[in-house]
Amino acid sequence: MATKPGIPKGTRDFSPMEMAKRNYIFDTIRSVYALYGFQQIETPAMENLSTLMGKYGEEGDKLLFKVLNSGNFMAGVGAEDLAEGQTNRLAARLCEKGLRYDLTVPFARYVVQHRDELTLPFRRYQIQPVWRADRPQKGRYREFYQCDADVVGSTSLLNEVELMQIVDTVFSKFGIRVCIKLNNRKVLSGMAEMIGAADKIVDITVAIDKLDKIGPDKVNDELAACGLSAEAIEKLQPVIGMTGTNADKLVTMKQMLAGSETGLKGIEECEFVLTALGSLGLKNEVEFDLTLARGLNYYTGCIFEVKALDVAIGSITGGGRYDNLTGIFGMPGLSGVGISFGADRIFDVLNQLELYPQEITTGTQLLFVNFGDREAAFCLPVLAQVRAAGIRCELFPDAAKMKKQMAYANAKQIPFVAIVGENEMNEGKVTLKNMTTGEQMLVDTAGLVAVLRG
Amino acid sequence: MATKPGIPKGTRDFSPMEMAKRNYIFDTIRSVYALYGFQQIETPAMENLSTLMGKYGEEGDKLLFKVLNSGNFMAGVGAEDLAEGQTNRLAARLCEKGLRYDLTVPFARYVVQHRDELTLPFRRYQIQPVWRADRPQKGRYREFYQCDADVVGSTSLLNEVELMQIVDTVFSKFGIRVCIKLNNRKVLSGMAEMIGAADKIVDITVAIDKLDKIGPDKVNDELAACGLSAEAIEKLQPVIGMTGTNADKLVTMKQMLAGSETGLKGIEECEFVLTALGSLGLKNEVEFDLTLARGLNYYTGCIFEVKALDVAIGSITGGGRYDNLTGIFGMPGLSGVGISFGADRIFDVLNQLELYPQEITTGTQLLFVNFGDREAAFCLPVLAQVRAAGIRCELFPDAAKMKKQMAYANAKQIPFVAIVGENEMNEGKVTLKNMTTGEQMLVDTAGLVAVLRG
Repeated sequence: MATKPGIPKGTRDFSPMEMAKRNYIFDTIRSVYALYGFQQIETPAMENLSTLMGKYGEEGDKLLFKVLNSGNFMAGVGAEDLAEGQTNRLAARLCEKGLRYDLTVPFARYVVQHRDELTLPFRRYQIQPVWRADRPQKGRYREFYQCDADVVGSTSLLNEVELMQIVDTVFSKFGIRVCIKLNNRKVLSGMAEMIGAADKIVDITVAIDKLDKIGPDKVNDELAACGLSAEAIEKLQPVIGMTGTNADKLVTMKQMLAGSETGLKGIEECEFVLTALGSLGLKNEVEFDLTLARGLNYYTGCIFEVKALDVAIGSITGGGRYDNLTGIFGMPGLSGVGISFGADRIFDVLNQLELYPQEITTGTQLLFVNFGDREAAFCLPVLAQVRAAGIRCELFPDAAKMKKQMAYANAKQIPFVAIVGENEMNEGKVTLKNMTTGEQMLVDTAGLVAVLRG
Repeated sequence: MATKPGIPKGTRDFSPMEMAKRNYIFDTIRSVYALYGFQQIETPAMENLSTLMGKYGEEGDKLLFKVLNSGNFMAGVGAEDLAEGQTNRLAARLCEKGLRYDLTVPFARYVVQHRDELTLPFRRYQIQPVWRADRPQKGRYREFYQCDADVVGSTSLLNEVELMQIVDTVFSKFGIRVCIKLNNRKVLSGMAEMIGAADKIVDITVAIDKLDKIGPDKVNDELAACGLSAEAIEKLQPVIGMTGTNADKLVTMKQMLAGSETGLKGIEECEFVLTALGSLGLKNEVEFDLTLARGLNYYTGCIFEVKALDVAIGSITGGGRYDNLTGIFGMPGLSGVGISFGADRIFDVLNQLELYPQEITTGTQLLFVNFGDREAAFCLPVLAQVRAAGIRCELFPDAAKMKKQMAYANAKQIPFVAIVGENEMNEGKVTLKNMTTGEQMLVDTAGLVAVLRG
């Protein structure tokens, strides 16, 4: 036989079992989004490159998959485009379209394009694959799904509250224990401002973000290395060493940021969200975490991130508020806040903790063994009735050896088998075998349905 | 404001309402596939071009969307590749990957690649988008979903029977009245053979296929035009003029094809399928239609097609048996049979006949009006309880004017609104307004849930 065909590196096929698990994840997230009034949209896989380019930084532009123009794609290409080292310029001639890199930019494009049809605030969710020409490695793929929910057109912090409730509800449904971390871009800005290093906010947050891994002394070394004065580092110590409850932290930070209007605004926002969540009895802990720093390029207010407590894995969900999502498409002044569940990591966590409900991985519930044309003809109407009762069943299509048919049932992990031979046909019944216990019983169709319904 | 951004021609955004309808279609098809023991798989959007090229004919190769190689895509390109008129050769250098054109070839690739993990017969379904660089026109898109189910590794005609049951069940669930047409490639081959024109099978079937539109005389003219002798055309008249029941047609065709082994085999197959379906009491008519001719390049046995009875639109579902799906990937001898639902056309039919169930287009069921922070704080725990009861609700995030909030409820077609002011807070209740009748009542949370559950 020829060499087995393959698929592009960094891409995956999903087997029936993997699909069952993935559908469980997506359906759970989808149902919770819907409970909170979010509405689903979908956008095309291909966007115009003019929509995508320049939105993800220089590195992002390189990671876009570009689609070759149809027909005579060389028509507009001149000698100067073919010059050595002009691959960007040439690519722009060869390709007008690219595969979407995330769901946020297409969403921003959607909002602007359809603004006349939308009623604000617009609460949308979107679950679709995205593509990135990243170097594939363990847990990083070139095609993967994102599961985003965003509200645009409202600056109310109640949106932040509800998104964190969604996070709490989703992970409770999964049975994954998590810590939901909250911080605020304005708090980080205020901190940098108060120590006289507003321009070093990124360096500072990168260093502080490593606290868990490298400890306070090394964080201080890093801060010094990026040019912070001893005095500035001294002023940061209350943050680096901060322990206690969220309420304690709020008090400490109010003192530290007393001179920063921005910083105090950030604290006020966090306090509002924490207070509201406190009254709602979430199942998971919400932690005000000053060292949380993500998406500093675009987030402008609250930022959040979710860590699984029982598995060592990075962030499994994150999000935040951005003040000018649609400005890049010429529609300024629209604030938004969103979250994104990391489906691939959640898939791994559920696997490691063995948290998938058993019923979701059961496909066919009942297999009818096929002894020949007469028996099959007897079975077909029975199958129709059993299916009408909502039970997933199949008739082995060929009158193969019993051993082969039972092997098929085992391979597909089908929990029940119906056997119909001469005796059963005479009695108008079927022999039902429980594949787990080995138990057998003679039942009519109603009995069959009753047993299968458990 | 700048020009509105757009999307590539032939692609679409799907609004929340369109998504609700599309999900209804996909979920219905998915649930029926599952009832019949089919298991879902997914394959990557990008396949290696070596997998896709040459599988859809020369025209198909042109319609493949090709993805530009990442990094320095000009590295392997020489002067000879850039020569005038060598776009195919150049494209092959620039692009290793392409977007899938259908679900059948990726499925064949999947079966061969994963053959050691699969238990045959393998019943898989797959609902994913495909991409074709076709000229866009009404009802024809460059990105559209296919919803395929196939069984491979079994030659039993019970598979055909079950696929047609699936078709009957799906359209019954939709409430679309259809005619399911059945024919067999072997019958068509036998016909061509019996009139001494085996080489003209395609011309003959193309002409006969037009019977409904142009009538028997013009069909005969066309047959003559493609070189059929008067004698051959005379022999075809029983087929062209054929009326009566399926049983009548089988009798006539058995006589006509008495001298063709292939033809009689085809009749036998149709008879088996029709007999089995006859015993199952389908809701829709199954018609043995000698003029049905589709997929002659690849189908080898039964072929079927579904026509809506109450809307003038082309085929809305089709399929058939192919004997060598995986041969192209070096794994010969595996027979398959499959169907594909045309989701876009079904979407249009359901729209035209107004058959969408009302409940599927209801997103949020209940909106809480927001009068301010105190009222919102009162509402949040109520919302949590209502959601825990499975009711989709939202709190307007901003304390906007009542008129604006009611306009939002109307725009989103939210059927109930909860109003909470001073009085309601004092009583620990909410005023529930039915947006259809205008009726209002004061209820506690349990009462709220009871009304919303209807």
